This record gives sequence, structure tokens and C-alpha cells, in this order.
Amino acid sequence: MIPEQRIHDLNEAGLADHEFRLRYLTDLLSRRTLDVQGVIQQLVDFQVAIPSWALGTGGTRFGRYPLGGEPRCLEEKIEDVGLLNQLNGSSNSISLHIPWDIPRDIPALQQLLQEQKLVIDSVNSNTFQDQKDQHYSYKFGSLSHTDQAVRQQAIEHNLECIRHGEALGAKTLTVWLADGSNFPGQQHLRRAYLRTADSLASIYEGMPSDWTMLIEYKPYEPHFYSMVIPDWGTSYSLCQQLGKQAQVLVDLGHHLPNTNIEQIVGRLLQFGRLGGFHFNGSMYGDDDLTTGSIKPYQLFLIFNELVDGARDQAVTNAAVAYMIDASHNTKDPLEDLLQSIQNILTSYAKALLVDREALQEAQENNDVVRAEELLRDAFQTDVRPLVAEAYRHSGGVLDPIAAYRAEGIREKLIQQRGKLSLSTGL
Amino acid sequence: MIPEQRIHDLNEAGLADHEFRLRYLTDLLSRRTLDVQGVIQQLVDFQVAIPSWALGTGGTRFGRYPLGGEPRCLEEKIEDVGLLNQLNGSSNSISLHIPWDIPRDIPALQQLLQEQKLVIDSVNSNTFQDQKDQHYSYKFGSLSHTDQAVRQQAIEHNLECIRHGEALGAKTLTVWLADGSNFPGQQHLRRAYLRTADSLASIYEGMPSDWTMLIEYKPYEPHFYSMVIPDWGTSYSLCQQLGKQAQVLVDLGHHLPNTNIEQIVGRLLQFGRLGGFHFNGSMYGDDDLTTGSIKPYQLFLIFNELVDGARDQAVTNAAVAYMIDASHNTKDPLEDLLQSIQNILTSYAKALLVDREALQEAQENNDVVRAEELLRDAFQTDVRPLVAEAYRHSGGVLDPIAAYRAEGIREKLIQQRGKLSLSTGL
Amino acid sequence: MIPEQRIHDLNEAGLADHEFRLRYLTDLLSRRTLDVQGVIQQLVDFQVAIPSWALGTGGTRFGRYPLGGEPRCLEEKIEDVGLLNQLNGSSNSISLHIPWDIPRDIPALQQLLQEQKLVIDSVNSNTFQDQKDQHYSYKFGSLSHTDQAVRQQAIEHNLECIRHGEALGAKTLTVWLADGSNFPGQQHLRRAYLRTADSLASIYEGMPSDWTMLIEYKPYEPHFYSMVIPDWGTSYSLCQQLGKQAQVLVDLGHHLPNTNIEQIVGRLLQFGRLGGFHFNGSMYGDDDLTTGSIKPYQLFLIFNELVDGARDQAVTNAAVAYMIDASHNTKDPLEDLLQSIQNILTSYAKALLVDREALQEAQENNDVVRAEELLRDAFQTDVRPLVAEAYRHSGGVLDPIAAYRAEGIREKLIQQRGKLSLSTGL
Amino acid sequence: MIPEQRIHDLNEAGLADHEFRLRYLTDLLSRRTLDVQGVIQQLVDFQVAIPSWALGTGGTRFGRYPLGGEPRCLEEKIEDVGLLNQLNGSSNSISLHIPWDIPRDIPALQQLLQEQKLVIDSVNSNTFQDQKDQHYSYKFGSLSHTDQAVRQQAIEHNLECIRHGEALGAKTLTVWLADGSNFPGQQHLRRAYLRTADSLASIYEGMPSDWTMLIEYKPYEPHFYSMVIPDWGTSYSLCQQLGKQAQVLVDLGHHLPNTNIEQIVGRLLQFGRLGGFHFNGSMYGDDDLTTGSIKPYQLFLIFNELVDGARDQAVTNAAVAYMIDASHNTKDPLEDLLQSIQNILTSYAKALLVDREALQEAQENNDVVRAEELLRDAFQTDVRPLVAEAYRHSGGVLDPIAAYRAEGIREKLIQQRGKLSLSTGL
Repeated sequence: MIPEQRIHDLNEAGLADHEFRLRYLTDLLSRRTLDVQGVIQQLVDFQVAIPSWALGTGGTRFGRYPLGGEPRCLEEKIEDVGLLNQLNGSSNSISLHIPWDIPRDIPALQQLLQEQKLVIDSVNSNTFQDQKDQHYSYKFGSLSHTDQAVRQQAIEHNLECIRHGEALGAKTLTVWLADGSNFPGQQHLRRAYLRTADSLASIYEGMPSDWTMLIEYKPYEPHFYSMVIPDWGTSYSLCQQLGKQAQVLVDLGHHLPNTNIEQIVGRLLQFGRLGGFHFNGSMYGDDDLTTGSIKPYQLFLIFNELVDGARDQAVTNAAVAYMIDASHNTKDPLEDLLQSIQNILTSYAKALLVDREALQEAQENNDVVRAEELLRDAFQTDVRPLVAEAYRHSGGVLDPIAAYRAEGIREKLIQQRGKLSLSTGL
Repeated sequence: MIPEQRIHDLNEAGLADHEFRLRYLTDLLSRRTLDVQGVIQQLVDFQVAIPSWALGTGGTRFGRYPLGGEPRCLEEKIEDVGLLNQLNGSSNSISLHIPWDIPRDIPALQQLLQEQKLVIDSVNSNTFQDQKDQHYSYKFGSLSHTDQAVRQQAIEHNLECIRHGEALGAKTLTVWLADGSNFPGQQHLRRAYLRTADSLASIYEGMPSDWTMLIEYKPYEPHFYSMVIPDWGTSYSLCQQLGKQAQVLVDLGHHLPNTNIEQIVGRLLQFGRLGGFHFNGSMYGDDDLTTGSIKPYQLFLIFNELVDGARDQAVTNAAVAYMIDASHNTKDPLEDLLQSIQNILTSYAKALLVDREALQEAQENNDVVRAEELLRDAFQTDVRPLVAEAYRHSGGVLDPIAAYRAEGIREKLIQQRGKLSLSTGL
Repeated sequence: MIPEQRIHDLNEAGLADHEFRLRYLTDLLSRRTLDVQGVIQQLVDFQVAIPSWALGTGGTRFGRYPLGGEPRCLEEKIEDVGLLNQLNGSSNSISLHIPWDIPRDIPALQQLLQEQKLVIDSVNSNTFQDQKDQHYSYKFGSLSHTDQAVRQQAIEHNLECIRHGEALGAKTLTVWLADGSNFPGQQHLRRAYLRTADSLASIYEGMPSDWTMLIEYKPYEPHFYSMVIPDWGTSYSLCQQLGKQAQVLVDLGHHLPNTNIEQIVGRLLQFGRLGGFHFNGSMYGDDDLTTGSIKPYQLFLIFNELVDGARDQAVTNAAVAYMIDASHNTKDPLEDLLQSIQNILTSYAKALLVDREALQEAQENNDVVRAEELLRDAFQTDVRPLVAEAYRHSGGVLDPIAAYRAEGIREKLIQQRGKLSLSTGL
Repeated sequence: MIPEQRIHDLNEAGLADHEFRLRYLTDLLSRRTLDVQGVIQQLVDFQVAIPSWALGTGGTRFGRYPLGGEPRCLEEKIEDVGLLNQLNGSSNSISLHIPWDIPRDIPALQQLLQEQKLVIDSVNSNTFQDQKDQHYSYKFGSLSHTDQAVRQQAIEHNLECIRHGEALGAKTLTVWLADGSNFPGQQHLRRAYLRTADSLASIYEGMPSDWTMLIEYKPYEPHFYSMVIPDWGTSYSLCQQLGKQAQVLVDLGHHLPNTNIEQIVGRLLQFGRLGGFHFNGSMYGDDDLTTGSIKPYQLFLIFNELVDGARDQAVTNAAVAYMIDASHNTKDPLEDLLQSIQNILTSYAKALLVDREALQEAQENNDVVRAEELLRDAFQTDVRPLVAEAYRHSGGVLDPIAAYRAEGIREKLIQQRGKLSLSTGL
């Protein structure tokens, strides 16, 4: 943890410049009678979970280039997230991945979380790999497998994830079912769905009544002919069968080329079934790049739907869980996460600036140019001072990446954990 | 209509060759104890509807190259379909497009249909163009329009379609809703959906109790940012809200790149919501090419799902409506339709050959190679003799395109209808 | 034309606000020792051509919704462009489309152009439609046709385009060859290429020595199996064979899904073969939306390549021709063009702000985060005051769309030209 | 190796059935005066190389499910290929991957190759992974790296590959350059190209004069913003700069969605720059599935271009190198390879059946339906008896997969090599 005085000093250097920018922006937005302080407060309140598996260097099937200083255990992962949260005040929770991060010493973990002002928000099951001590292989599926014994093993793994989560206060189970097939004929498409629905029902029954099950979809990878849950429609149909605690999770990289993702977000809000997000950036597929690095306007349009839905009394959707899910192959994972959060907050801030009454009026009148320009006006506004101010309000720094570098954090981590430390998991 | 004797003569020429091929195939398939006569009978029974708008030369937004001899009125369209059906015995019904083909003299049309041994299977509404006498424009939408008056006009048009259909014995209303938006912000995505659901409910209420409403989806075109009904999930959600008479229509060209369409077909069968098909071929988008001309294996895999579903007692899906919906820009439309039907029947025949017990066994055992090879074996079998035999059983010709050319039908049509005749509509 | 006093009055209203914004931005950028006036001057100098065919309402193959007040002849088109240029000072040239806009009275046109301070920059040939008096049809191709007579007709049309262009001072021939095939087998792929290369050589020979031939590429539409010139590699190979006056034209909508267009721009600059651009916006294909309306970051990255290339002495590419080529189906075409130009200038301005020395240093050191943030810093800067100031410097208005609406220009045009006026062409 | 007698016995069982089928097909094709024996001979002569890395179970970034019995060294890989070649007589060569398969004992390897009747056709360099003893990392590129020292290391690795290849009689170096960038700004796009061209020139200079350099292209993965060699145009431009011994390699999975690959094949043949193929199957991207498993018609159309080019005297392209390059994640790798070869030969056989005179005539006359039907006639013909006969002529078995299973080869390999044996490499 960086000492508070050091945080203060880091901010001191950039403060005059920050205030110059913030003052201008406040002036500018106040001319529209926008409540700038209210916007900043909403940014302060916004929190995005960090997945325990995103703190180490990722890779592709072709290679991996570790960086050093990666966390070697759950405790070190918590420390890394604590550091991020200290810098930006926007990532106060962790998504656990089981079995990569099975919690062992619960009281010690609880104390560490408290010290770091963090919570565990969700647990993620993994039935897309075989673990060493595993009885049946998932090579040909898990919750959708043709063999009841394999399905049962996968069901129990999910139930065990819930138990681990309960011990640490989590309330959400995220199911990314990687089952599918690589060749026509390999899988009976309808039966695979039925078996999956059945397996999910068993997990759902075993879930505490205040938990939510998030069901992810993905059109391809790791299977390249069919995935059992390829699209939002399939996730949605499963949620409908399961009950109110089942919700759809949207991972930004899990769509076919040219998908209008913001429309899916709007649909799911409409149906009261938008459970959560996995944020990442994508140009081709599940590229798992930094959120907002490729299509920032799309990210803004997604937040535009979220803000619009949040303000609409007719929308009864429960709170949405925000998580990052990326693979940091090229950048320092902690820098990558800081960038992602910055981009998320920037998009959110812009969506908060949209003049919704004027937009609705333009939409009602089919004044296409005006409606579009209202969105573009918000998108083009440079809201970075608002985000920096929100960081500062939360006790963080104005420029997290600069602070991270100035503090030489990666070097310190390498010193502590070694050059060859490897994060558990992928 | 071609005289029966002439049909007989046309077949006589190719008969020896046909019998040589059919005998071999029958031998080959009988070794697997396959009921070849049963397969032929299923091909005889299979019928695909011809849309009234597909009998003239289509075009793109860049140009159109008419061919001559195109039908100038509904009566001539019926004659064209009658001719196709005489040749192949597989297209005994017509999909009507309103307002391009509003039936005028009902008794005369009924008699003509009877003479031609045809029925009207469905009516298609059109709210994607403004008609001359139309009060409100659909420029900014129809069933989803922000203005109640425009929506009402579109609802009434659909109800009028039903009335026209009733007069001629149709039982199906196909709704392709082309509403959408071209720019972010133009349309409030959630409200557009709600208005559409509302409008559809009004139409549904006005639909006779033995009718089916088919709801099409399409990801883009004519709108290029969002479509109100972009994917099967949206169609499905609307059907769920409307009731049991609402079903999803799958148009093969209406998917994002790389979509696994056969899986969608399987899902909808599973849900009992697969209402019908619009067949066409596609390489890039809604290319509206000859069915099966680009991805014949995909077409086979779709029929594989259909045949599989039809044989599964657990599937309660009602009868599926098969229609062709293509745009004949390059080929003679009648030749294009004959090719499409040939490709559809060929794919269906191959799907009928699949050894489903062996397939199920391979699937249950995750014997991927065997499962795949069982499909491939059927696909690689040259089933054209079965299709030709089915044509002959139905009173048609062994080789419809050859017969069409030998008879000089296009030349005769040009003579009758003129070089500059234009089919009504697009 | 709007009287100068009126321009002045329109600007007066927004001036204080503009100056407030501009002062802040100037302050901000000057802290980086950036030459703000120099940037504004580059924006003033930037000109983008307006195509004569973009002044009327476009449409899709499904329908068209005209707006009224569309220019009925070339003279009125020139007036429309003159108006745009008066408003923003950034569109002082016109791309002519032959045969839609064959110039008749040359001296009168020259005088009109001079009055409007416009030039004709290029002529576009059209062999994708059959014209009324045309001897051979282009249904099966033009420059690639199997029949030498058809090819000759298309060659002569292109040569005639050059003659029309010469009469009005143009120096560029743009060839969009829409030839291709809809079905496997239809066209012999290699021979179609050879015939095309041959035809282009004949046109090239007939081109004055100070002209440039721009060769466009497009992967699909209007043909849906193959296009003779589908990609930049094919255009480039043809240019290499033709000679130095042949260059590749990049239309932003003419790429397969997920193409990295900015990289193609960089490649062509590298090869000295980047001849020009057709700007438009695209989500799915050749959607022909407002430039920058869907992927503004991509547009910025393209300008980043252009600015980078322009500053690199090693790049010997000749001046690039900028044109808009969109289809205005939903918006008022003139508003759409004003938006497009605004978006283009905004992207250009941002690219001019990039700190290239710092970027190069970060790139050399593989400091990925820093390199990216340098681009993002420029992209996130709100440069609209610079663009507005450039408009003002050029004698235009601070807010062209607001001025266009305040002046009631569309209403006036409808009054003058009628509600049913139709722009010639598509 | 399977004893010859056993091969004979395996064939005996299916012989009557085979002869029944072959006799029919011979009859059928002879009616067209097609030289059936000539076709079989061409199938016998066709050889496709097996990559040394394809003999073990592959995987995705998410997991890997090894099968057991995988070859543990180059010698065992050679044995595996020898076995495949014994079964089908169509895979008499191996592509070596360096450094996964550095040959050690050259004379012993030469003898083993001779015994197995195999040759080494090509060597593949690898600069997409860091090897243990490597001085510089390829994390930020190899041949395109900003640091001259890294480039030099990568150049030397390629030269070393050539030396290894020379020792074993190879004549081809395949360069798949995985360099690229994940984020806008990371890489200077033009300079990365220039550095690559420079590095390739150094390798080219060091290549023996009877060698060929094959340059692969790939649009994305392992980098997700840009690849230095993303498309055929870039490969082609590099080949032009390098010289006549440089050729483009087409990997079927390395294209953006909806690419018309057969047209690229035709273009490269036209330019005399088609060097070779990496065969695999693909639905979404570089899925590395069994060749022909997803789009068999496309594979046929590619062979149609190849056969057409081979028969055209105007085409001066040198012999094309055929290799399989797939990742066997789901199936037994040896079964997968047998299927791939079967599908390749089937496609080739069909392409050999096309009536090219009739096709050319139809194309010249723009008889689209006839041209297409000529291709489809060949595609629909069940040519499996020809392929089986070719296997038999080469001393192989009629049904390689059945034989492989009947012989219990996987079980024997597991017994020999162990359940946990892992193929070197990925």
C-alpha cells in the first residue's frame, strides 16, 4: 500500500493543471445547468470488479511472455487489487476463479480483505479445463456432457464454488459454459441444450436465495463449430426456465462480427435480465484487449443504454454487476487494468452528460441529426477531469498510471515476488 | 402448361440414363436396409412455396437488368408458379405480397389456382416502402414508429393482408419488419421494441384462430445501425409475448457473418417456435442468391436438424412453412427457382439418408470422427436420381431446367408478355 | 448564397461561447508548445470534394424516401455545394458522375463554378448501370466482359468521362468497377482480371499526362460471389501494371468485416500508391452512412496515418484526393454532408495534435501503454473549437448545421425546386 | 509399419463393395468420355505434406486434452507420418518445425526417412515464442522488431532453419511471421513493414538458389490490432521486392470473414506467386479444424482454380507445395489427418471431373446457370471410389480410418509411448 502522504504528494504535482481543466469543464457544463458534482459522485460510486485471473500476464495459444512480479497466491492477488483500488477508488471487489483461487484460510482472507477495503463479489466456475485430481474429463463437455456422471461432477464443482463464495460473502455465481463442438455431427444440438438446462437447474436449486446466477454466452472458442450457449437468446431462454435469480452476463468480446451490442444491452434491461458485464476490448473476436481500446464509441453507447435504463422507472432490472475480463498479453496487467477502469469511467461519465430530455424529444420527432448530435456532443466532451476528480474524492490519485510508474511498483513486485513468478491459472 | 405428352417425351430421352443411376443408388442404399421408396415418397410430399415477388428480375440498389417475359399481374404469376410446379411437382403454393399483388377478382383467382393445382399459403405484409396512396410515410418506421397514427396505419395494413389471405384460403401472415435506425441515438432502442410488441399484439388479436403469424428477424439492411428485430432471440421474445400462434421465421440470409444457423433451427424446434423458412443463398449478407449455391453443406446441416426434429417425439413443433425468398438479378428467375428447389430437395434427400441410430450412438460415445463421417457419408452420396424420380412420380420432368430450355419457355413468355414487361413490386 | 452580413450575424450569437472554448483549448495546447494557429491553418487548408450524386436522397434496394428540394440539374448541384462551402469553407470541389451529370453548357458552368468558388476535381465513370441509349448491356460486366465489343464500349465511356472532365479542369478519373459474379463458375476469375487489366490499359493510354486514375476496390455488392477488384491488393497490382499515374482509392465502406483500414492506408502510402479516399461510415458493409458516425476512433486512426505519412520525408506519395461518398437515406443530404465534413475535420484536427516525437520514442521502446495513451490523449481532446475557428477563418459559420437550420434552407429549396424534385442518378 | 499381407487382408473385406461402386462410377464417367484411369493416376500422384507439429493433440488457450501415444521425438513423428503414408499413399513428406524438431543425428534420420519412403519438404521457422536459451525476447516482434539485435537474432534463426533443412534435403522455407500489435499506436505500421522487408531480404540472400521462401499472411492472432503481414497483398508486395524465389503461402484459416479465397488463389496463380497451401477447416477464424469439415464446396472451388491453372499454358506458376496445418484438439490427430487427406483428395478428384471446355463455353456466353451447373455436377458426383482406388494403387488401404481402427493403432502407440506422452511444441 502506498502511504497516504505519498498519494498526497503525487497529486500535488498535477493539481494546478487538474484544477485548470476541471474549472473549465465545470464552467462549460454548468452553462447547461448540469449538476457536475452529482456526476462526479456517480463516478465515485461506480465500482468494477477485478478478476483474480487478470493480475498475471495472459497469453494466446501461440505463446506467453511473462513479466515478473506476478501474484503467486490469492493473498497476493488481493494485495494487487487493493493497490489498484487505492490508486483509483473504483475497483473495490474481486471475482474469484475456482479452482485457480480456492480460498484456504478464510478468517485470514477476511481480515486481509477488510484491511484492503475489498469484497469478493462473485465466484466463477471452471469446467473448461481438466484439473489434476479430476475424475472425469471435460474434453467432450461438462454441464452438457452425454454422460450423467460427468455432468454431476460439473454440477458439484459449481455448488462447491458457491460454498467457497459464501464463506467470503460473495453473492454471485458466474457460469461461463465453454461446452460445444468442433465438427458437424459431434454433438446433438438439441440434446446438448436440454442436458445443460437440466444441469443448470440442479445448480440453481443449490444456490442460496439471495444469490444470482449469471449465464454467459459466447459464439465460438474454445469450440469452433458450435457452442452450447452461443448467443444472448440462448442465455435468456435458460434464465427464463431457471427463475428470477438467473440473469444474462454480457462479455463484450463474445459476439459475432458487427453485432450491435448496445441493443442487446437494451433488450436485456427491458426484459429485466441483464445481470452483468465482462468488460474488454475487441477488434476480431474474444481478443481480450484493454476495455475501450478499439471501439470507444461503442463502449459509450453501451453506457448510454445503462444510464438510460437506470433512469427509466419502467425498467425493473436489478443492479448490474460490472467486471473486467481481459487477457493482458502485451501490457503490464496492472497498467492494463488501470487503463480499462479509466476508459470505463470515461464512457460512463460521458453517458451521464447526455441531455436525455432533449434526446427523447428529438427521437420522438425523428430529428435524426439532432438526436445523434446530442450523443456525439457528450462523447466529444473531454471528461477526463471529472474522472480524475472522482479518483481524488475516493482517496486515489489524479493519474493512476503515472503514479504506478512513479512509484516503481512493478519493479518492487519483481523484487518481492521474483522475475519468474507466475500467476496461477491460465 | 406443357401438354402431358410432351412431359412424357421429355422424360423419355433421359430415361435410360436415369434408370441406370437410380438402379445403382437403390442397390447401394438397400445394402444399408434403407427404404428408398420411402425416401422418394418424402421428396414427393415436400413442397416449397414460391413468393409472388420472385418471378421477375430483381436488382440491387445499383442497377437492374430485366430479362423480358416477366409476369405483369397476379394471374400471370400464378401461371408461372403453375409451370414450375408442373415441371417439378414440388412448388404447389404461393406466398402473396401485399400490396404488390392484391387479389382483385377472387372467384376467378380461385378457379385459376384450382386449374393450376396451386394454393395460396401465406400473405406477406409490406411496411418498408411508401405506397402511392399512403397517408403516413414509413421513412422512420411502421409498427415501431413513434407516432401512434403511423403505427395504426401499419397495423391496419397487416389486418388487411389477413383479409386478402382469408379470401384465398391462406393461413399464414409473414411479418418482415424492416424498421430500424441508421445512426446511434436515432431511435430509443427499448421503446422501439415496446411499441413493436404492442403493434404486433394488435395484429395478433385480429388474426383468425387457425392462422399463424411468422415473425422474421434480420440484423441489418435496410437499416445499418440497428434493426428492431435483429436476431432470433428478439423474434422469439415477441412470440412468447404474443401467444402460441406466433412463430419465428428463419431467412437464411438474415444472419451476421459466421452464424451457425442450423443450431438456431435446432433451438427453435426445441422451443416449438420454428414457424418457417425463407430459403436463399448467401456469402456476405442478405445476398438473395440461389438457395444452396454458396454453402451446400450448411443447407444439408439445416435439413439434418429438420429431419432429426421431425423424427423426435419430444419435439412438438408444428409443421414448418417452407418458402423461397431470393432476388434473381443474374439468372432467369424461373431457372433460378428450379435450381433452388433442386438444391433444397437434394439437401433434404441427403438428410433423409443419415443413419440416425448410428449417429446417436456415436454422439453418445463422443466418437467425433464416426459421428461426423455419418453425416458426411450422406452428404457425399449423389442423391440426384432420387430427386429426379420424385419429380417423375409427381408428374414432372426428370430434368426441369433442361425441359424449361428445350421448351423455349422464356422465349414464349417474351413473345406473350413482351420484352419490357416488368413484374410488379421491387 | 447567404449574404455575408447574415453569416456575420449567425456567428455573432455564438461568438462569446466559442471564444471561451477556444481560449481554453489554446491555453491547454500551448502548454505542450503546440502551434495552435498552425493547426487551425491546416484545417482551413483541408478540402474534401462533394460528389454530385450525394446531394439527393439515396435509398436502398427496398425503398427510397425523398425529401424535396433536391437539385434537378448539374447547375443546382453546384449551387448546393457552393452553399456547403460557404458554410464551412472546406468543400471547394465537386466530383462529377457521368452520365448522370454530363456537362452541357461549358462556359456557363465555368462561370457558375467561379462564382461559387468551386472546382471540379474528378470525374467518375459508371459502367454498373445500363443507360437508355446504350448499345450493349453491362449485365454481365463492362471492362471485364467476355465480349470485346462490350469492353470497348466501356473503355470509350471512360475516355468520354475524361473529355468531360478536361473541359471543366478536372485532373482525376475515378474508376469504380462494379464487375463481378454472383455464382461460382459464372466468371473465369483469372481471365476476368486479365481482360480488366487490358481495358484499364486502354483507358490509361488515353488519359492526359497530368491526370491520375484512381482505382477503387470493393469486396462485394453489387455482386455477391466475386468482384473483379475486391481488395487493395488487386487495385495495387493493376496500378503497378498501368504506371505511375494509377493509384488506389480507399472507400471506407469497401472492406470485409474487421479489416484494419488504417494499416492499408499506411501500406499504400508506403508504396506511393494512395490516390484518394471515399469517406463514409459503416457498421456492416457499404452502409454509406455519415462519415465518422459509427467508428470515430477508426477515422482518427486513419488520419493519424495520413498526418504521419505527410510528415515523413521517406514517403513520396503524391497528394491524396479526399471525397465523400455516402448515401443519404435518412437525413437531409446537406445536413449529412455538413456532419461528415465536421467529423472529418475533427478527426484530422485530433491527428494533428498527436505528439509524434514522443510517440516515436514510445514505439521504439515498446512502451505500449505510453504509445497508446499518446494517441488517446489526442483523440479525447475536444477539438471542436479548432474546427469552428477554421470555418470562421474561411468565411464560414461557427456551427454550419445550426446555420443551415436557422436559415431554413431546406424549406427554401423545396419552395424553389418543389417537393417532388429528384436528384438525377440513383 | 503394417505388414503388407495385413494391408491386403484389410482391403479384401471391402473389395467387392468397392468394385461395385468403382465400376458404376467408371461407367458413368466414361459416358462423358472422361479418362477415369488418368484421374486416378493424378490422385495417386498428389502428395500433401504433414507438419511435424500436427501429430500430437493441439489445444486452445483455454485447455488441452492429450490423448496418449503421442510421438515424443522427431523419429517417432517420422514413424507416424510413415504410417499415414502407408495407409493412403498420399503423404510422403514432412514439414519440419524448428526449434521443436531440430534434427540431431542426420544420417540416422536420412535412413529412417528412406525406410519410411518419406522426404522432408520444408522447414518452418518459429519466432512467435521465446525458447529457453534465447537471448532476446520476441514479445514485441522478431523480424519487425524495433531493435536491430532482435531482428538479427530472428534472421539467424531463419538461416539456421535453412541449414537444418539442407541437411535433410528440404527445398522450402516457410515463414509465418506472427509479429504485430495489440493496440493502436503500439507499432509504427509503416516502419514495421520496412523493417520486415529488410529482415526478409537478409534471409533471402542467405537462401540457396534452389530454395523457395514461402511467406504466409494472417489477419489476426496472436495479435489483435494489426499483423505485419495481414493479407495476400502484403505477402505479394514482399515477394515482389525479394525476388523470384519468394512466393505467397495461403493458409485457409487466415482470412477475414467471408473472404473469397478461391479468387485469391486465382490471382496468385495469375501472378506466378502461389507458393503453397496450409490446409485446414474454418468456420470463424484460424480454427484449425479438419480440412474440408466446414465448407467442402469452398475447398472444391479452390481445387477448381488449381486444376484450371495447371491446365492453362498461360499460367507460369511453379509447382505448389501442399501442406496440412491444423490443430487436432478433439480428434485423434492421426484420424484427423487421414480425414483431411481424404477430403483434400475428394475435392481434387471432383475438380478433375469438371468439363472445362463446356465451362469455358458457358462462361464466354454468360450462361450463368449452365456454368454453375457444370461445377455443381462435378461437386455432386460421389468420387469416393476414385480416391479409394488411388489409395489402393499406392499400396494403401481402401478405407484408412477403418484400417487404423481395426489395427488398434492408437492403443498400440499408447502402449509403446505411454498415456502421458506429449508431442513437443505447442
